[in-house]
Amino acid sequence: MAIKTRLTEFFGLEHPIVLAPMDPASGGELASAVSAAGALGLLGGGYANRAWFEEQSAKVSRPDVGCGFISWALASDPGLLDLALQRHSRALMLSFSDPAPYAPKVKQAGIPLICQVHTLEHVKRAIDVGADVIVAQGTEAGGHGLTARSTMPFVPAAADLISRRAPRVLLLAAGGIADGRGLAAALMLGADGVLMGTRFWAAQESVIHRNAKEKVVTASGDETIRTRVYDVVRKKAWPTEYTGRLMKNGFIEKWHGREDELRTLQEAELQRVEQAWTSGDYDTANVTVGEGIGLINDIPTAGDLVKRISAEASACLSRYAAARSSIAA
Amino acid sequence: MAIKTRLTEFFGLEHPIVLAPMDPASGGELASAVSAAGALGLLGGGYANRAWFEEQSAKVSRPDVGCGFISWALASDPGLLDLALQRHSRALMLSFSDPAPYAPKVKQAGIPLICQVHTLEHVKRAIDVGADVIVAQGTEAGGHGLTARSTMPFVPAAADLISRRAPRVLLLAAGGIADGRGLAAALMLGADGVLMGTRFWAAQESVIHRNAKEKVVTASGDETIRTRVYDVVRKKAWPTEYTGRLMKNGFIEKWHGREDELRTLQEAELQRVEQAWTSGDYDTANVTVGEGIGLINDIPTAGDLVKRISAEASACLSRYAAARSSIAA
Repeated sequence: MAIKTRLTEFFGLEHPIVLAPMDPASGGELASAVSAAGALGLLGGGYANRAWFEEQSAKVSRPDVGCGFISWALASDPGLLDLALQRHSRALMLSFSDPAPYAPKVKQAGIPLICQVHTLEHVKRAIDVGADVIVAQGTEAGGHGLTARSTMPFVPAAADLISRRAPRVLLLAAGGIADGRGLAAALMLGADGVLMGTRFWAAQESVIHRNAKEKVVTASGDETIRTRVYDVVRKKAWPTEYTGRLMKNGFIEKWHGREDELRTLQEAELQRVEQAWTSGDYDTANVTVGEGIGLINDIPTAGDLVKRISAEASACLSRYAAARSSIAA
Repeated sequence: MAIKTRLTEFFGLEHPIVLAPMDPASGGELASAVSAAGALGLLGGGYANRAWFEEQSAKVSRPDVGCGFISWALASDPGLLDLALQRHSRALMLSFSDPAPYAPKVKQAGIPLICQVHTLEHVKRAIDVGADVIVAQGTEAGGHGLTARSTMPFVPAAADLISRRAPRVLLLAAGGIADGRGLAAALMLGADGVLMGTRFWAAQESVIHRNAKEKVVTASGDETIRTRVYDVVRKKAWPTEYTGRLMKNGFIEKWHGREDELRTLQEAELQRVEQAWTSGDYDTANVTVGEGIGLINDIPTAGDLVKRISAEASACLSRYAAARSSIAA
């Protein structure tokens, strides 16, 4: 059943699957469960919030877990990168904006560097800073990103560029991949594996309120949108080109396109959002997921998910293999 | 080498590939060449321009060619649908907006009905009006469409819905597919084949100025954008939710985001665009292509393209098949 790729060889994995370091979903328990299942778990260092990092880092139960950060946010507490490299040394992932300020430290530590990219220009930059693994993420992904590229055409274009410039570098596909069909498709496009966020966001172990997960289980993939409203209300200093993909809800319906007005009411609206987050009211709090929600119908454990996705991908790959064999015979 | 799917069986094809009925690229010569190569060619009926239809229809050299129209545009000359059903009866494709007004005539003629869709709601509608083939098109596609969905997550979601509601209906993936890797990936996602536009747009036979094709050959997939500026300048009455994906150029850079001002200068700007189209100045005229341009490096004949794409897809499908066989053995 196992699918062998350059990724499984490089990291010694059973399955070519990596957990996206989602903040706050990818806590210590989820990252550990993914690694325990034979894939690669990455702790969601995200906005470099030290309290969150310490709390979730303490829950990591295995040495074969890595960590990921939002690059521009690391400036607020660069020391967290050192902690991550010491404690969760399987890999370090840098996402969003230029990885150059932090890449040298990762390379000097001898730890595999994973760089997330959204354009071919980003691919070149990631190669230049020494990335061992590049994650080509399409606009259908949950959370922040750009609108420039979708996964289907972006992954093979990234594969061609890597093949010309730095063939040793591995490539992961990300964005809209939530089951074994997506994994098998990613391998056809030239990826060595996949990075999955939204699907693990709705796993048992993810640090997300049960109400939010249940909302996603019943949703269609038509129900997401790219917006800045939660960045505005939370005063997150995202570079202007980035927006976030989330599931549509009442808060987005109210404020999307009225961001200037939202800024004038920011404090009161933030209070509403924070209360909603605590109480589990996801018509007001953010449900940060991608189009893959349309492929999510349950809330299993991460270990069951890894096995199911890998088995389904194997079945997909076998289907046309059998057809071809019978033709060849 | 042949890849057998439900699509190849249904239409008696050698390759599970369909030419998008692009207006004006998919003329009689291109549609005929695609069918001659063992795929399915569709004449680009587009905006239902009778002069164009008559000119290109006369160049169709085979009975196994179909035709496609922009549904809302057929209202200006519904008689063209009758002509298409008589002359190019292999299939009739309806794209953009509700297919219901024209579907009954296609069904009564006993001709396979292909419906293009951009959301799961569209999938349901297509099933309800009797579609034999549904084309699930992601936002990375060239030309008009919606931003709601990308190909990677949309195709498996459409496959699941079709499987529950109308398992006899075939499914094609479209958007961002320009080589054999994309075809193989589409099959993994649950599609029965692919509909390709941009790749054939840059084939020898397409009715597009050589300068435009050469511009695409050197472009990266990062260089497209969704915009309304050419609809505004050409006074095309697109439903408000639709935008078009094109290659960025000087005209788009000048007018994107300034559509109201463009309306006041529409006549003069249209004259510029029409002159540019004739002279081959594609910094001013529209280059209507999708993100797949990043995978296009040459201008071959359509027949060579079909064979190359199919062979590459077979090689992709074999790659993991071989790995799996050796593991199983």
